[in-house]
Amino acid sequence: MAFSITILGNSSAKPTLNAHPSAQVVNLNEQYYLVDAGEGVQQQLIRRGINPLRLRAVFISHLHGDHCFGLFPLISTLGLMGKQTPLDVYAPAPMGEILDYHLRYFDSDLPFEVKWHEVRTTEHCIVMENSTLEVWSIPLRHRVPTAGYLFKEKQPGLNVDKFKITKYGLSIAQVVAAKRGEDITLEDGTTIANEELTYIPYEARSYAYLSDTAFSAKAAERVRGVDLLYHEATYSKSEEQWAKGRGHSTTTEAAKVATKAEAGRLIIGHFSSRYKDYDALVEECRTIFPNTYIAAEGETFKIEEKRNR
Amino acid sequence: MAFSITILGNSSAKPTLNAHPSAQVVNLNEQYYLVDAGEGVQQQLIRRGINPLRLRAVFISHLHGDHCFGLFPLISTLGLMGKQTPLDVYAPAPMGEILDYHLRYFDSDLPFEVKWHEVRTTEHCIVMENSTLEVWSIPLRHRVPTAGYLFKEKQPGLNVDKFKITKYGLSIAQVVAAKRGEDITLEDGTTIANEELTYIPYEARSYAYLSDTAFSAKAAERVRGVDLLYHEATYSKSEEQWAKGRGHSTTTEAAKVATKAEAGRLIIGHFSSRYKDYDALVEECRTIFPNTYIAAEGETFKIEEKRNR
Repeated sequence: MAFSITILGNSSAKPTLNAHPSAQVVNLNEQYYLVDAGEGVQQQLIRRGINPLRLRAVFISHLHGDHCFGLFPLISTLGLMGKQTPLDVYAPAPMGEILDYHLRYFDSDLPFEVKWHEVRTTEHCIVMENSTLEVWSIPLRHRVPTAGYLFKEKQPGLNVDKFKITKYGLSIAQVVAAKRGEDITLEDGTTIANEELTYIPYEARSYAYLSDTAFSAKAAERVRGVDLLYHEATYSKSEEQWAKGRGHSTTTEAAKVATKAEAGRLIIGHFSSRYKDYDALVEECRTIFPNTYIAAEGETFKIEEKRNR
Repeated sequence: MAFSITILGNSSAKPTLNAHPSAQVVNLNEQYYLVDAGEGVQQQLIRRGINPLRLRAVFISHLHGDHCFGLFPLISTLGLMGKQTPLDVYAPAPMGEILDYHLRYFDSDLPFEVKWHEVRTTEHCIVMENSTLEVWSIPLRHRVPTAGYLFKEKQPGLNVDKFKITKYGLSIAQVVAAKRGEDITLEDGTTIANEELTYIPYEARSYAYLSDTAFSAKAAERVRGVDLLYHEATYSKSEEQWAKGRGHSTTTEAAKVATKAEAGRLIIGHFSSRYKDYDALVEECRTIFPNTYIAAEGETFKIEEKRNR
């Protein structure tokens, strides 16, 4: 099952010629979720071959313009495209008021509903859940109320070992029961423990988005064991005091969070416009957390299935 | 004195990969005016080498998103850039309310003032004036209240003929008086008519922006004699009924307005996303109005001084 993150924008608030503000798409089994929506996100979606109509929901970390100004044009365009199903928007307050205003002035005749779900930025809880996914809010430390998001794949269902089906001559009904986790009693009265028949096809995977934020040990704890961690690294390690004052992180701080979280991989973004070359930033991280990469625009980071057998 | 128009975006509402929504910059003597502000306009300004801090005012034709969604991120960025002087925004109502909302939620601590000036879209009048320029509103026929804009350079001041200065031995005071339009009385009592001494260095120039609009003969009259006319041509001539229903124009209609207005040149834009190649559109115009060009993104159209001598 696909689980990947495509970076649509990795810059901070001041736009530059070739960098777009924060936005990315999480693809879990061809279900697409937009995380932050900086200006130009609809064009960035097209550029990366993602039909905006395929978005199931939008998650906004906080109400700074570089994280949400692209949401409103996107909504208008989805209207022009004839979207029928609701668009769920998960965001801190007062996004509800802002959406009301937007709809009143610009999109009073949308063919679909925009449903705002309030994300409380002080709470670590499930904000969205469906059959394959849980999305958790992660309280962050920024200048305005801000939530990170943890995308946790649900544990995939049990598979039944083909060799055991043959060995014990299991019926279809017995295979279905085993998939439900039941022990199986054979015709001769023998009971086979479920663990002998089944296996978990792969471990559930996870992705965390922590931006914008100053260093937060608590956030690191809350994403412990995450396979792929996006952490903002707006500034170089030499700018620690400046970063702190702005509610942002340095490269070093991003790497420390990844280390503390025991993350599989770290990707860094939300770079200040002062940096033209991100290689030095990623190298700073790698001295602490070697498995660090630039969240380069257009790049897709796949989280592979970890097979148990 | 420079008078030029740089196209930042020429597409209609549905974004495509390589086209941006409506936006352009009028440069009159290094004073920059933004006309419409579709999404991404701040990045388009950078792409064309125009520092957003140099914008003196913004003119918005109407409150459809593809003509104004870029204004709000631009305002935020001007704040980050430390703009101190007011930004004048000329736009139909309720832009004042919308700006209030934007400032309240996103830019409550801007270092500069955003001044909204209401443009009444039913009136043909001067909406802005300074020492070199008048900007007139042109009522248009669209689905929502919409104004075009006519940028009329003021008649340049009189020049005094150098040969006449020598011939009559004019003093500096006499030259200054002649520039004011006065007749000059020489020491011998002879009066020299002002017309003999002076000339207008070049005719005042003009640029009109008519978008979005259905065909309007009245608009054509109001821009009569314009040097450069931007007229929307959202659709090909075969789509006349569709265009009418949407409050838009076809190529043929744009060319008819240019003909009726006796425009110097016509540039067409605001193309529907269905057209991948604009050459056919411009050819349709040229059968009626040969001096037609595509308002191609990044292109700068200069209006040269027409010298009298």
